[in-house]
Amino acid sequence: MDFYHQDPKTVRQMIREGKITSPTSGMCAGYAQGNLVVLPKEYAYDFLLFTQRNPKPCPVLEVSDVGSREFPLTAKGSDITRDIPRYRIYEHGELKGEYTDVSKFWREDLVSFLLGCSFSFEAPMIEEGIEVRHITLGCNVPMFITNIQCKPAGVFHGPMVVSMRPIPYEKVVKAVTVTERLPQVHGTPIHIGDPAHIGIKDLQKPDFGDPVPIHDGEVPVFWACGVTPQAVAMQVKPSFLITHSPGHMFITDVKNSQLGG
Amino acid sequence: MDFYHQDPKTVRQMIREGKITSPTSGMCAGYAQGNLVVLPKEYAYDFLLFTQRNPKPCPVLEVSDVGSREFPLTAKGSDITRDIPRYRIYEHGELKGEYTDVSKFWREDLVSFLLGCSFSFEAPMIEEGIEVRHITLGCNVPMFITNIQCKPAGVFHGPMVVSMRPIPYEKVVKAVTVTERLPQVHGTPIHIGDPAHIGIKDLQKPDFGDPVPIHDGEVPVFWACGVTPQAVAMQVKPSFLITHSPGHMFITDVKNSQLGG
Repeated sequence: MDFYHQDPKTVRQMIREGKITSPTSGMCAGYAQGNLVVLPKEYAYDFLLFTQRNPKPCPVLEVSDVGSREFPLTAKGSDITRDIPRYRIYEHGELKGEYTDVSKFWREDLVSFLLGCSFSFEAPMIEEGIEVRHITLGCNVPMFITNIQCKPAGVFHGPMVVSMRPIPYEKVVKAVTVTERLPQVHGTPIHIGDPAHIGIKDLQKPDFGDPVPIHDGEVPVFWACGVTPQAVAMQVKPSFLITHSPGHMFITDVKNSQLGG
Repeated sequence: MDFYHQDPKTVRQMIREGKITSPTSGMCAGYAQGNLVVLPKEYAYDFLLFTQRNPKPCPVLEVSDVGSREFPLTAKGSDITRDIPRYRIYEHGELKGEYTDVSKFWREDLVSFLLGCSFSFEAPMIEEGIEVRHITLGCNVPMFITNIQCKPAGVFHGPMVVSMRPIPYEKVVKAVTVTERLPQVHGTPIHIGDPAHIGIKDLQKPDFGDPVPIHDGEVPVFWACGVTPQAVAMQVKPSFLITHSPGHMFITDVKNSQLGG
């Protein structure tokens, strides 16, 4: 079954019923997907402040009310605990398990953060005639830990994680202007060119995801990555943390084209 | 003495020493000025979430660390309690007094929010050849309470306040594109044209500020206003609240042209 042209409500319902448990890449074309970070209220202020101080790696699409399992602004009627195909639960920094439904773990003191995802800017890039290498190859985007420190907030601190896409020299400016229009999904690149300048030693050895080849006439372009807030959240080893499993995102009712504000 | 060409550090120092106690309009040309809201930590999460959900009326330039009197990112070395010419203190919603220095009222549980101000987009508008009527007339901008409800967050809720500027029809599009470039100072207009559409009965009777004439061939254009977060904060009647006095803003070291991110 092809979910490319399905609407988000239908797909979230199928996920909720356990009929979809796969990664969400390519589902509900044109609609924004998001990263999930769920934390107890005691961490919520520091984490929200961290996202405010670091909007490029941590573009907030929505924050739930305390104890609420719904994202009413971006996905009315949603159930945060069941509408993602696969979740991870961490306790004090240790992975407790992977689940397709986390409703039985829900607590009234939890706050859910939905953060923008680069899926939202890759579709417009392709529409503008820019090849996205890892999509062409059918692998995951290569991600790297940089020497750029995020601005700390309370207990949260850590380096920025970036994703890399090789872009032909003649399309670099277009890649900047396309992503500039989408500040809620990481916005403009963090860096263009020499990886050593931001502390990356070997582009063929990403810290997360898969390596991709860079052809002659192409330059590596780096965007702030939504793995940053997850990595930072995990580093603090909070007593309890729910995230989506990599690639298994929350699908919203908001079109990518509406994210510009 | 003319402070138009002075740098922000010098002017903040003069304010700190009590040598300037006047409104800051026209000081330190090109540098962003901000609205101040200081609240006890117990209100900080809800207020930060309110700004996240309502970025147009509440564009956050910086949030201090708890108990810190400095805005290190936008004004290194600043003293939040002494670098504004005039402050107001409210207790349980009642004005306790106006002060040129609030350092003796400081508490370790306070959090300071610096919010973008429309001064930052009026200069670029004038540079683009758009007359800003209240500046021409030397009065305050007219502000109105609308029927647009902000998205509530915790204890904070209330209607959006807007500022109005009459714009000639042939310059309305320019006014939109100029302000679009500055999302951190309210961004694009909330509404263009018929005031009744957003619940405003009489443009000559603003809720705050001064009325300005609208000439033939001009249309009223409305932007979200930084008075919104102050009005909303005061409505909750927090146990303790410090704000700047109207027109007496915090001057940052950040140029307006850098606010685009």
